[in-house]
Amino acid sequence: MRYYSLDEIKNWERFYRANFINCLTGFKPVSLVGTVSKEGVPNLSVVSSVVHLGADPALIGYINRPLAAAPDTIQNISDTGHYTVNHITEAFFTKAHQYSAKYAPEINEFETVGLHASYEEGIIAPFVQESPVKYHLKLVEIVPIAHNQTFFVIGALQAVFLSETLVEADGFINLEQAGSMLSLGLDGYAHATMVQRLPYARP
Amino acid sequence: MRYYSLDEIKNWERFYRANFINCLTGFKPVSLVGTVSKEGVPNLSVVSSVVHLGADPALIGYINRPLAAAPDTIQNISDTGHYTVNHITEAFFTKAHQYSAKYAPEINEFETVGLHASYEEGIIAPFVQESPVKYHLKLVEIVPIAHNQTFFVIGALQAVFLSETLVEADGFINLEQAGSMLSLGLDGYAHATMVQRLPYARP
Repeated sequence: MRYYSLDEIKNWERFYRANFINCLTGFKPVSLVGTVSKEGVPNLSVVSSVVHLGADPALIGYINRPLAAAPDTIQNISDTGHYTVNHITEAFFTKAHQYSAKYAPEINEFETVGLHASYEEGIIAPFVQESPVKYHLKLVEIVPIAHNQTFFVIGALQAVFLSETLVEADGFINLEQAGSMLSLGLDGYAHATMVQRLPYARP
Repeated sequence: MRYYSLDEIKNWERFYRANFINCLTGFKPVSLVGTVSKEGVPNLSVVSSVVHLGADPALIGYINRPLAAAPDTIQNISDTGHYTVNHITEAFFTKAHQYSAKYAPEINEFETVGLHASYEEGIIAPFVQESPVKYHLKLVEIVPIAHNQTFFVIGALQAVFLSETLVEADGFINLEQAGSMLSLGLDGYAHATMVQRLPYARP
């Protein structure tokens, strides 16, 4: 086992370091976050930092990169208060990845890249039609992370859309069957296969 | 596609809701966080909310559950300022899962459950000997999340330990080869298979 010191890591070439550090935390859930601007332009961005915060109330967080790198999604969420999260599957992950490109804010990314927007009654933010598991969040709080100018964006679950056949008798969602993908590092995509559900652990 | 309203979700039986909401965000990286108490008792806890915050400086976050549910890890981090994160693999995930049980703080969980502690020079927190990918974090900030009494714990990367054979020419870490597992919901474990690395997306 090799020891990598912080000094060594700091001195690496920038992209080598970014690949290494981005992989280090493990395989990540990967989704498209759907928003709409004040001017009505729909937007999608690839987010691999979605994290469960709690089930009751149902709160879900994600890390928004610094404004210089990723300004549109957080601006839209801040302006409208609503956003959607749409699982990426193997059926459309190459198209989905294209939404990580930095388009000008006035570009309709749905039309440009080719995934389809769908809308649900009473929800201003766009969903991804191709996605089999998606949900609507209402902004609760944007927590600025002072140490690196990122933001921890917290949303409250409002609604979920998925096929009932994915939900098992105890509420567990079969995301292997849904085809929900993972990302690794900056540009890797992976497929998940269930191994086992384990009983609740007691001392 | 079925529409699940927030009202419906709120009225579900507690464990059904917990399974559903915990699955909703997708497959998660799953690790053991290693800490040591002021009194010198080593502790491990299963954490599936580790999230990449930035590569330079290298910052990594995780969600600590409310104090009533998970007091020891955050107390130890707060007291000592140091902790480790150790990837869980298929070789030992059933043992690792047992660390999600709520042991009394004076119990040496390594001895009780059977994974082995290992120590690195100058690092007070224990590593998991069985884990092939592990790193040392120094506490930067504990951000209380007022909405549900959880905490967003931010650490700065100090050192990494893994086999050099896992690191590809551009810094990408082959975590499929490492056998790093995923969790789904409260109790599901899954295996990842790489599908593809995609080129950097440009408009």
